[in-house]
Amino acid sequence: MEEARANGPNGELPRPVVEGPTNPMVTPLLTDLYQFTMAYAYWKAGKHNERAVFDLYFRKNPFGGEYTVFAGLEECIKFIANFRLTEEEISFVRQSLPSSCEDGFYNYLRGIDCTDVEVYAISEGSAVFPKVPLVRVEGPVAVVQLLETPFLNLINYASLVATNAARHRFVAGKSKLLLEFGLRRAQGPDGGIGASKYCYLGGFDATSNVAAGKLFGIPLRGTHSHAFVSSFMSPDEIVGKSLHSSDGSTTCEDFVSLVQTWLSKIQWSNSLNGTFGETNQSELAAFMSYALAFPNNFLALVDTYDVMRSGIPNFCAVALALNDLGYKAVGIRLDSGDLAYLSCETRKFFRAIEKEFGVSEFGKMGITASNDLNEETLDALNKQGHEVDAFGIGTNVVTCYSQAALGCVFKLVEINEQPRIKLSEDVSKVSIPCKKRSYRLYGKEGYPLVDIMTGENEPPPKVGERILCRHPFNESKRAYVVPQRVEELLKCYWPGNCSDHKREDLPSLKEIRQRCINQLEQMRPDHMRRLNPTPYKVSVSAKLYDFIHFLWLNEAPVGELQ
Amino acid sequence: MEEARANGPNGELPRPVVEGPTNPMVTPLLTDLYQFTMAYAYWKAGKHNERAVFDLYFRKNPFGGEYTVFAGLEECIKFIANFRLTEEEISFVRQSLPSSCEDGFYNYLRGIDCTDVEVYAISEGSAVFPKVPLVRVEGPVAVVQLLETPFLNLINYASLVATNAARHRFVAGKSKLLLEFGLRRAQGPDGGIGASKYCYLGGFDATSNVAAGKLFGIPLRGTHSHAFVSSFMSPDEIVGKSLHSSDGSTTCEDFVSLVQTWLSKIQWSNSLNGTFGETNQSELAAFMSYALAFPNNFLALVDTYDVMRSGIPNFCAVALALNDLGYKAVGIRLDSGDLAYLSCETRKFFRAIEKEFGVSEFGKMGITASNDLNEETLDALNKQGHEVDAFGIGTNVVTCYSQAALGCVFKLVEINEQPRIKLSEDVSKVSIPCKKRSYRLYGKEGYPLVDIMTGENEPPPKVGERILCRHPFNESKRAYVVPQRVEELLKCYWPGNCSDHKREDLPSLKEIRQRCINQLEQMRPDHMRRLNPTPYKVSVSAKLYDFIHFLWLNEAPVGELQ
Repeated sequence: MEEARANGPNGELPRPVVEGPTNPMVTPLLTDLYQFTMAYAYWKAGKHNERAVFDLYFRKNPFGGEYTVFAGLEECIKFIANFRLTEEEISFVRQSLPSSCEDGFYNYLRGIDCTDVEVYAISEGSAVFPKVPLVRVEGPVAVVQLLETPFLNLINYASLVATNAARHRFVAGKSKLLLEFGLRRAQGPDGGIGASKYCYLGGFDATSNVAAGKLFGIPLRGTHSHAFVSSFMSPDEIVGKSLHSSDGSTTCEDFVSLVQTWLSKIQWSNSLNGTFGETNQSELAAFMSYALAFPNNFLALVDTYDVMRSGIPNFCAVALALNDLGYKAVGIRLDSGDLAYLSCETRKFFRAIEKEFGVSEFGKMGITASNDLNEETLDALNKQGHEVDAFGIGTNVVTCYSQAALGCVFKLVEINEQPRIKLSEDVSKVSIPCKKRSYRLYGKEGYPLVDIMTGENEPPPKVGERILCRHPFNESKRAYVVPQRVEELLKCYWPGNCSDHKREDLPSLKEIRQRCINQLEQMRPDHMRRLNPTPYKVSVSAKLYDFIHFLWLNEAPVGELQ
Repeated sequence: MEEARANGPNGELPRPVVEGPTNPMVTPLLTDLYQFTMAYAYWKAGKHNERAVFDLYFRKNPFGGEYTVFAGLEECIKFIANFRLTEEEISFVRQSLPSSCEDGFYNYLRGIDCTDVEVYAISEGSAVFPKVPLVRVEGPVAVVQLLETPFLNLINYASLVATNAARHRFVAGKSKLLLEFGLRRAQGPDGGIGASKYCYLGGFDATSNVAAGKLFGIPLRGTHSHAFVSSFMSPDEIVGKSLHSSDGSTTCEDFVSLVQTWLSKIQWSNSLNGTFGETNQSELAAFMSYALAFPNNFLALVDTYDVMRSGIPNFCAVALALNDLGYKAVGIRLDSGDLAYLSCETRKFFRAIEKEFGVSEFGKMGITASNDLNEETLDALNKQGHEVDAFGIGTNVVTCYSQAALGCVFKLVEINEQPRIKLSEDVSKVSIPCKKRSYRLYGKEGYPLVDIMTGENEPPPKVGERILCRHPFNESKRAYVVPQRVEELLKCYWPGNCSDHKREDLPSLKEIRQRCINQLEQMRPDHMRRLNPTPYKVSVSAKLYDFIHFLWLNEAPVGELQ
């Protein structure tokens, strides 16, 4: 993230100026109306500046898994760093509230920003778990409420799609290229841009989305579509047929004829014999044109007519002609049919070409597969055996088709230094009160063992010292842990006016991506597996446990059986 | 949509200037890289200006239904009206393509816009069906390809979420208020903004999303959250206790005491006796504060502690105190628990209050329900019986949780006046070739009977004349129809330089919403029902049928059994 610096009026070392959110539509109005009605009611009650602490967390990992990748923090910080209501926005708020609301409130809105707000968060790209605060926001209650909806909006989808991407990576394995192709099916323009960013964060290698490439420096991939293939009629329409050799030393004046010669060699070859008859000429013309335009980057989509009877022989003829001129074709893409079978048949054909014509490495030609891939189909491909080197994944990864939302919530845990609890008949929805600290405790083998939340002022867990970790709501679940390493999870990403804390730098997207990869690699494998993963333990200190249950009893009404 | 007009250089009557897309991130770079690599290959082959026709359509209705609401057109038109690559964008494209690409291409990119492009579309807000083109785009092949991804991105989610909203409306019934509360769970910032726009289009009444209210004039709704309730400790902290009466004639100096008096009346009432003991005082304080801030708009969230033992009696005490001062409370919101049961119990309580204290209309107090509502839960509530007047729906409607993507595609159907077909082993994926016209034929009872596609130059179906409608791929499925009304579906929304056609005006969002409501009301009920709806028929003319199958045979390779 780029930061501009300007000297303050008294020449003091200035705070870094953080640029605004990626999407200019992220403004203070990107919030629920009730945040403004509440702000008015707080203001009217003289309560707006009471200092409140809110926790942002989720209750359940997505996709039936036992981990989540935290993402979206940078956009939140960019948002609050530039949080100010414009006159136009204030005037819209005025229109939207009852006319009985007093003018003084709009003057108040004119003055607010996030200099009184502090934001503590787990580092973006971390593995995170239910109930543990991802973000803790402290500040004047009316201002912090206004941040609720945009924070949830910026974090919910980002974390969901990053997790989804990480899960796809896990199934595909480290050695495969993962390409995100989802822009056309994404939930709106920045559903697409966000997907590209957070899929990359979650471990994808590249995207087809040019805008995301420009905004975030994500590597771009893409060649051609079926329409390109069917836009050609026959090789006769190719006008410019000449192609320089790769080293520039010679020129082939008729690349079209060279390809056609190779095609008949393939057709008449004994080892390849009988696998196909006439190939589709419009496809052949399209491949030749594409190769003439991109002789160094020839990757062809081979399923417009028929993969094995047309696409693959046509591709090989063009690739062999390119080879004559010193170019190395990149490979093919399959976008339909039985990808396991077709990739294996294709690989055999490539190997047969290598053998028959003595073109070394031809058998290792790249095979990309696309067409509605998801975790299940990747897993099925692995089980069947396949020869795919790269997967292009669209709809399922970007829209998180198997679970389209993450349920992060934003709960008041303290106001005026008074702890608050949100009760519910559903125990999983009871909030954990108090301004808290959280720690990740690591075991002997280097794996994280448990996350523990404590009260703000409790002494932190110490390496080598036994500590009791309790389930927050189930009194029988508890365990002693002797941590070999203790990591404090919440770091200060926005100190506001509070000078006690240095602001953590916002790392680059590449660094966040690497953190994600490292974090998931250090998890114990049974937490990560697709089927029946073991839940990672989340706990509270004994002291916090007692306090939660004291407060709960205090707030819950006593029933009367009738 | 606002339009600015400026005189052209020769004083000629100018084309209206259309403002840009709602989201400034919608630029020509919001596309897949392969659109640019193909554009280069077309350009290199001298083929870039060949006139191509593409159809945008989907293959299957979403959500297990038999209809779809078409949305997103206005944003597409705003996009192409302003389609130009900036120097910065061109320079990024240059960076992203191989360095071997020739400079001339970038000069070409500098010059392109959509003045040579024509866009024909079904009116936004219409009921639409599989295979029938929603949009037909004609123009230079390289330019039209660049439009593919943004058009799909802008239409896929818009149509999906509008359809989802319409389905929720269908189950909820016309008389209920439907409020969209999904911003916090939406897929990114304009996943949220788009959801608010297209839920309104699909028949919702209002949104909580302030930014969407400002951008599109959608009515806004919202009051307060659980955090507001738990931010109060007790009525003692309320400082400003006075409230003017509604007509301004008197002032109640101690509204807090007035409420407390009412609360004991309720507690000691015979008819309400025994339903609750002490209510939660922090909740009572929050309700009083909210009422003091919004005496005309008092709507309280009643489930922070316990609905029947605390929330409802507290609400009633405040509402009755307001009533003394001439204000009418708006109602309550339930956000957890058994909504059918709680809404009925609440209604009984309100009626008992009306009777006991002679407050007319109190029994009709508004009841809003929220908490993970979707089509199924609305249907279940209807079956159980409930007393809810308004539904707040979030996650499920905005993320289209039950099906997170619509699969619109963009297929080449003609180039240089040559019809093109895209084959597939899966018949449902074979495209319908040719530049076509489409008509909706209506029967005697006013219902639409069938959509029919014909070749561009076939005579249109005539009212009262029998016409054969054939299934495009199943030879045995055909039917004669004598239409009582014939509606041509594709209208010209962007004529480019083509002066034959007048450009259709883009209607306001309210008008599109009304079209959607009208269109769905005029469908035969069996197409609309939730369970096992009857498919609406989509057909081709006899002539087009014959041509499709001629072309198919012509392009498909002949297999060799081995």
